[in-house]
Amino acid sequence: MSGPIATAGRPGPVTTVDLNSDLGEGFGRWSLGDDEALLSVVTSANVACGFHAGDPTIMRRTCATASALGVAIGAQVSYRDLAGFGRRFIDVPPETLTDEIVYQIGALDAFARLAGTRVSYVKPHGALYNAIVHHEEQAAAVVAAVRAYDPTLPVLGLPGSQWLRLAREAGLTVVPECFADRAYTPQGTLVPRGEPGAVLDDPGEVAERCLRMARGEPITAIDGTPLTVTAASICVHGDTPGAVAMARRVRAALAAGGVEVAPFIGNRAP
Amino acid sequence: MSGPIATAGRPGPVTTVDLNSDLGEGFGRWSLGDDEALLSVVTSANVACGFHAGDPTIMRRTCATASALGVAIGAQVSYRDLAGFGRRFIDVPPETLTDEIVYQIGALDAFARLAGTRVSYVKPHGALYNAIVHHEEQAAAVVAAVRAYDPTLPVLGLPGSQWLRLAREAGLTVVPECFADRAYTPQGTLVPRGEPGAVLDDPGEVAERCLRMARGEPITAIDGTPLTVTAASICVHGDTPGAVAMARRVRAALAAGGVEVAPFIGNRAP
Amino acid sequence: MSGPIATAGRPGPVTTVDLNSDLGEGFGRWSLGDDEALLSVVTSANVACGFHAGDPTIMRRTCATASALGVAIGAQVSYRDLAGFGRRFIDVPPETLTDEIVYQIGALDAFARLAGTRVSYVKPHGALYNAIVHHEEQAAAVVAAVRAYDPTLPVLGLPGSQWLRLAREAGLTVVPECFADRAYTPQGTLVPRGEPGAVLDDPGEVAERCLRMARGEPITAIDGTPLTVTAASICVHGDTPGAVAMARRVRAALAAGGVEVAPFIGNRAP
Amino acid sequence: MSGPIATAGRPGPVTTVDLNSDLGEGFGRWSLGDDEALLSVVTSANVACGFHAGDPTIMRRTCATASALGVAIGAQVSYRDLAGFGRRFIDVPPETLTDEIVYQIGALDAFARLAGTRVSYVKPHGALYNAIVHHEEQAAAVVAAVRAYDPTLPVLGLPGSQWLRLAREAGLTVVPECFADRAYTPQGTLVPRGEPGAVLDDPGEVAERCLRMARGEPITAIDGTPLTVTAASICVHGDTPGAVAMARRVRAALAAGGVEVAPFIGNRAP
Repeated sequence: MSGPIATAGRPGPVTTVDLNSDLGEGFGRWSLGDDEALLSVVTSANVACGFHAGDPTIMRRTCATASALGVAIGAQVSYRDLAGFGRRFIDVPPETLTDEIVYQIGALDAFARLAGTRVSYVKPHGALYNAIVHHEEQAAAVVAAVRAYDPTLPVLGLPGSQWLRLAREAGLTVVPECFADRAYTPQGTLVPRGEPGAVLDDPGEVAERCLRMARGEPITAIDGTPLTVTAASICVHGDTPGAVAMARRVRAALAAGGVEVAPFIGNRAP
Repeated sequence: MSGPIATAGRPGPVTTVDLNSDLGEGFGRWSLGDDEALLSVVTSANVACGFHAGDPTIMRRTCATASALGVAIGAQVSYRDLAGFGRRFIDVPPETLTDEIVYQIGALDAFARLAGTRVSYVKPHGALYNAIVHHEEQAAAVVAAVRAYDPTLPVLGLPGSQWLRLAREAGLTVVPECFADRAYTPQGTLVPRGEPGAVLDDPGEVAERCLRMARGEPITAIDGTPLTVTAASICVHGDTPGAVAMARRVRAALAAGGVEVAPFIGNRAP
Repeated sequence: MSGPIATAGRPGPVTTVDLNSDLGEGFGRWSLGDDEALLSVVTSANVACGFHAGDPTIMRRTCATASALGVAIGAQVSYRDLAGFGRRFIDVPPETLTDEIVYQIGALDAFARLAGTRVSYVKPHGALYNAIVHHEEQAAAVVAAVRAYDPTLPVLGLPGSQWLRLAREAGLTVVPECFADRAYTPQGTLVPRGEPGAVLDDPGEVAERCLRMARGEPITAIDGTPLTVTAASICVHGDTPGAVAMARRVRAALAAGGVEVAPFIGNRAP
Repeated sequence: MSGPIATAGRPGPVTTVDLNSDLGEGFGRWSLGDDEALLSVVTSANVACGFHAGDPTIMRRTCATASALGVAIGAQVSYRDLAGFGRRFIDVPPETLTDEIVYQIGALDAFARLAGTRVSYVKPHGALYNAIVHHEEQAAAVVAAVRAYDPTLPVLGLPGSQWLRLAREAGLTVVPECFADRAYTPQGTLVPRGEPGAVLDDPGEVAERCLRMARGEPITAIDGTPLTVTAASICVHGDTPGAVAMARRVRAALAAGGVEVAPFIGNRAP
């Protein structure tokens, strides 16, 4: 771990930032996104674990490529929902959820070890990510899973979420993230996807915002007010046309602006 | 295979034997067998990993109970086939099969670690077990998975199978097993289930045979000829009425006959 | 809902009542309940359609036996959730839910036709049943599915639910049901399962209540006040020990009390 | 049904031919092929039924578009194998297979009815298609399913297969098909995919061959000998780059050559 781990309220400008993206989200015959290309841009790979996407072969390949490129491997854990791609809230009992998260981390860790490294962090996916912003029981259930599996595993999530609050209280290392292409409210929450202007699609604007967020400089919230979004990792998307190009633009802007792009946590030894 | 198979430091004729059984084979709302009772009888638990049976909660509970009772935890790996309970041959490409086995072992190992131990061996289930008696590509695929995951993991299987032959050649520790309640041909293979007399149901006879097999003494093949079946582990079944009672009878007969019942491999440290 | 609900040509106070139960809820290797026995007691079979339980073979067998015994076949539709037995709320988009319900009814109808009859009604299962008591979007989605598939199909559900209200408004025949072994609040809603006294386990008391409900006579709510529960069908459970015995006791009490037990809708021609 | 149903050994040149293709093979978040485009080219749509691909929403949409365009809807039935896309042989017991096929046809028929038509034929997919060329028990199991569901449903398959032989013996209408882009042996069987020259990729050559096959004129087998392939339907693929363009080229060549392109069976009334 070479740089400071930024957490909510950390002072000072960030000069190192991580780029994370969802990867390995195909299943069997079906593929999604250009994993090879994206793995050459990001520094942390949120690898699907088979519950919303990902199968053992995709997991092995994604871990192998990530490890070879020095990209940190994170467990992108999810509700058990292949049909819904993990995008529907499921009212899973907390104990069941804890067990399901442990299962997913363990399965991915096997492939990370085969690739000479380890699962290095945990980031919930989709509806689970959204649910544990507010849903304390499920947030606590995911925290319990990480603690039980390996209390040294950092967790990635939304600043201000119950998930990060409970994780911090449980002694886990928390890593707040921001989103490259999403508009923010003046309160620092994401503008919901359905609303106008929620998703930014101008690569230049996105790259510029990322540079400012990485430096700890204020960006403009959707109503025009300045907003400082502090985060140790920036999430870039990979499953839309133009996604890889935008991710490259972000990385280039960070480099040009003197921000080092590096995993928020170094690769772990197996 | 006619001679004694030496396992972990066990010299000479076998006076110690392991009892293994399939466990944790429910799924969600559905249960199967009396796991609690069986775990108090056997010394090795072949725990289902979620591909033919078993879910994360069942896996966690089974590992916790097994560990508390000193029962060794084995990964009962399978084809991906919940609908068929892993009992139908699937012509999975070998590389896919390797990845699926790694996934299952890794997932179970997470729960074994939570229980303070580790996956201590691997035993394929159902149609996969039967296929790799003869199917070299699939046998090699399972061997490759175990080697990649942990080359110190012993593997359990049928004496004379391609599975054990290839595992041995790959440097794995192989543990041949015999079956408590199955009739044998004069050649030492199992009488197929459909044939008359294939399954023994007299508890006294079963217990007596197990004692003879554990001692390395000949039993009677289905045609009446004497047959020596050497094995380091005896498989008892748990999913039929009377199964637990028969397992207890076997264990009692072994104890009365001076055979120590113990895991063929001690519990592993986490 | 305080007044009598007239169904298919049934005038005045109810002297005929239907007994419905969940059936065909095994999956592959796993069975649940004694379907054969229960089918000899009830008059309507809520047959699982493969989404929370049930597989094609179980569906075929259950339909064949039901048809042979003159038991009406209903589609027990569910969220897609084998791992959770359909007992967890899933925030499925309404259009997806509509399609999933159509799929299930169509699949079951194939087996009903093979058995010489048809799917004769629809009853949602588990968490879906509970959700559409209040969740208007999902209730409307299930109504839309039934209307699209066959607007002459009656639907079974909880009196006072959004589900029955919307179904009635959409022109479907609604059949309110009551529960044999559940306590009621003075308002006529079910006492939640977790609370003391929520589930009745005295067969004599249960049978007596069923007779009163079938006759339209008041029963005693959990606080002791009299409550008239009008319903055209009584739901008896089949998956607990003693379930079949209790169902038989209910049927015998109804017969002894002069109440005819018959499907609320006759068998449909294929 | 406007044209003659051609079967093996039928005399005279074919002047009407059907074009069939696999459709609706996405699942949840994942899509495959350009269904909209392909549906404007073919006359018969082999619609996936949810066992190897396809979900209820995709099935509904595909049936709606097919029906609107006058494309006949066929049930593309498969082994239960989403992870393997139905491409691995599964040794399913015949009775189970029969039930699984009935389930799939019934589910698809629900959506066909919603679209104002019916399932109009059955074509097995992938490994099942290949298995029942030779595997008599499984071939008979699929035949039994079609007969039980609707003995007037035609079935599509490989000339010379056990599947078509048994279907014909059972009284079903059989429709032999040929493949637009596959090389043939002098015996009229397909050159296995792995072999050199097995798949044709020159659109002009493919279109020319299709015209000859449709007219009953000999094409050239892989060894150069002339071969007459008689078929009432030509299978074009849709899931590769250039697939739609090639299908359009085939259709144009048929039109230019005076061959009418029409479903081998007209749309069925609901």
